[in-house]
Amino acid sequence: MTNTANIAKGLEGVLFTESKLTFINGSEGILTHLGIPIQEWAENSTFEELSLALLEARLPTAEELARFDADLKANRAVPQSLLDVIQAMPRGVHPMQALRTAVSYLGLLDAQAEETTEEARRAISVRMIAQFATVIAAINRAQEGQEIVAPRMDLTHAGNFLYMLTGKEPTQEQARLFDIALVLHADHGMNASTFTAIATASTLSDMYSCITSAIGALKGPLHGGANEAVMDMLDEIGTPEKAAEYIGGKLDRKEKVMGVGHRVYKYFDPRSRVLRDYAEHVANKEGKSQYYQILETIERVVVERIGSKGIYPNVDFYSGTVYSDLGIKKEYFTPIFALARISGWCASVIEYTRDNRLLRPDARYIGETDQHYVPLQER
Amino acid sequence: MTNTANIAKGLEGVLFTESKLTFINGSEGILTHLGIPIQEWAENSTFEELSLALLEARLPTAEELARFDADLKANRAVPQSLLDVIQAMPRGVHPMQALRTAVSYLGLLDAQAEETTEEARRAISVRMIAQFATVIAAINRAQEGQEIVAPRMDLTHAGNFLYMLTGKEPTQEQARLFDIALVLHADHGMNASTFTAIATASTLSDMYSCITSAIGALKGPLHGGANEAVMDMLDEIGTPEKAAEYIGGKLDRKEKVMGVGHRVYKYFDPRSRVLRDYAEHVANKEGKSQYYQILETIERVVVERIGSKGIYPNVDFYSGTVYSDLGIKKEYFTPIFALARISGWCASVIEYTRDNRLLRPDARYIGETDQHYVPLQER
Repeated sequence: MTNTANIAKGLEGVLFTESKLTFINGSEGILTHLGIPIQEWAENSTFEELSLALLEARLPTAEELARFDADLKANRAVPQSLLDVIQAMPRGVHPMQALRTAVSYLGLLDAQAEETTEEARRAISVRMIAQFATVIAAINRAQEGQEIVAPRMDLTHAGNFLYMLTGKEPTQEQARLFDIALVLHADHGMNASTFTAIATASTLSDMYSCITSAIGALKGPLHGGANEAVMDMLDEIGTPEKAAEYIGGKLDRKEKVMGVGHRVYKYFDPRSRVLRDYAEHVANKEGKSQYYQILETIERVVVERIGSKGIYPNVDFYSGTVYSDLGIKKEYFTPIFALARISGWCASVIEYTRDNRLLRPDARYIGETDQHYVPLQER
Repeated sequence: MTNTANIAKGLEGVLFTESKLTFINGSEGILTHLGIPIQEWAENSTFEELSLALLEARLPTAEELARFDADLKANRAVPQSLLDVIQAMPRGVHPMQALRTAVSYLGLLDAQAEETTEEARRAISVRMIAQFATVIAAINRAQEGQEIVAPRMDLTHAGNFLYMLTGKEPTQEQARLFDIALVLHADHGMNASTFTAIATASTLSDMYSCITSAIGALKGPLHGGANEAVMDMLDEIGTPEKAAEYIGGKLDRKEKVMGVGHRVYKYFDPRSRVLRDYAEHVANKEGKSQYYQILETIERVVVERIGSKGIYPNVDFYSGTVYSDLGIKKEYFTPIFALARISGWCASVIEYTRDNRLLRPDARYIGETDQHYVPLQER
């Protein structure tokens, strides 16, 4: 390693592996899984199907999907000892600290945890995808001092989650809206949390270690925290008539507007289009919510004034409003991101470890050389 | 991103940041912290001093070191609620699963856990360095069905750990030998676990998330598990007179010999020299242990036959024997690696986040394009 080599800050643009799962063309606003546009997945598929398709890197047959769905349902319940740990957690902790701890604890309870064959990684993935819903709902209930709600087997993954979270069976429309949100967030190529999962996997560590790492990375405000920040902004704006002035002022002062712009997308994030269309559909049927009206104004002002610079609303821009309308508190937006992304994490770890290589980049040394230890009393 | 770009497999040789902490010249067998050779640290310093030096990126004054040492001691005890969780863990779990879970749980109990300023990261680092010893010893005791031993404030970090682990005060020589082993493992530049900690930190996530990730990465057999594998080999060989034939056969069949060769070092790993000298010193005084005699033979055969190819004994080659002689079971070698490396992890996260950049490399997409969703019944 010579000192004249360039530093790839943030590893941006550095290719380190190959993948068959997800393709993104940021300048044209294209996102595909297995070559199929995200819009088609959102319209036709379910979180269950996309999860299996990512794990297998192909569209499943009807029979395979039915078996996978049954497997997920069979794994919805988590051991009582884990629920005890969740209930013993102090109140007021960050839900992602709680999720990271609970998932790490799950590893202690899984007899297969140490197995790292592809078959074992897949079996553990199915359990984790199922159990994430139960664990996140249980954390929310316990933190609010409410009784934990046991899973139901007659609901979809999305519907059952909303049921466990609120204790009430969601409408079909609510369950389907949430299902679409999960589909939209299930995978997004080499994002920071998926990369962290892979970095852990590259030492041939176990699935629970990989996913615990990914949760930790997703927790950071530069990654998973953005839709929560959008809601903070909407609450700060307050009413739709104040939106134009607020956002205009932000742009005048060149301040960052939350939910706008993306490292990858320099055009509309296709996921934000799907969510906006759905929000519009709901708005036309039930009247526009305050949040939705504020978002409409922000989007109009942003696209008019800085759209030409490649800065557009991203997926976080609408997802917060959708979640909020479903009765989910903003502190749980990032755990819900994890609820969806678990499929992408697991699929990416399985794909990477099939042709594994330890990740070990370098840092350029810029410290002192030829030093010697100086006795303490001589300093 | 074009499809003709090269893939940097394992990110080998890719520079992504700068560091003032550690310099390694693998072909000459050089390792320095702050420009000072590892041999001088091992000979003159302590784990406490090197930890503070890494956190501050400079040699501390006597007064600073005394304050740091007092801080570490003040933080040795961990909350009873964490000890309850450790005691409730099922028996027979992998100690690194237990450590990952316990450290994640510590984050739930630290009121400062969510703070990510440099000052907060440093304060949390001090607590983690101190508490790792207590947590690892407690896990070992609990897993063996023994009572957890409370820390003592009159012993060094190394001495207190051995005391908490065994319930017996170590001799000064034992405590110092273990201290040297911790010094030798405290940091090693951009290894996989440090890199994983940095990947998590790059989203501006909290210290507990970063360190939980690092533990998960260290757990993998390609990273932290190597000295355990050396002990397995020694047990397999059994007696010194069988060593030459065993190792000769391995080399004839071109099989991997554990504890030999290193991705970075193409000459003697300087850390292995320090440990060998110490082991020799003990051997001359107390007679050579079986393990030591086997290692001597392996080293002689390996250097004679493949040393010219840049394959030499590495640090794992001797550390297992040292730990074993101190009464540590081989399942705890990797947690003890973490006990030392926590200082390097924390120092590296603090250094990286000072000029943070989200880590987001790319994968080359090699999957299908222009596909469409096919209805389930048509597949």
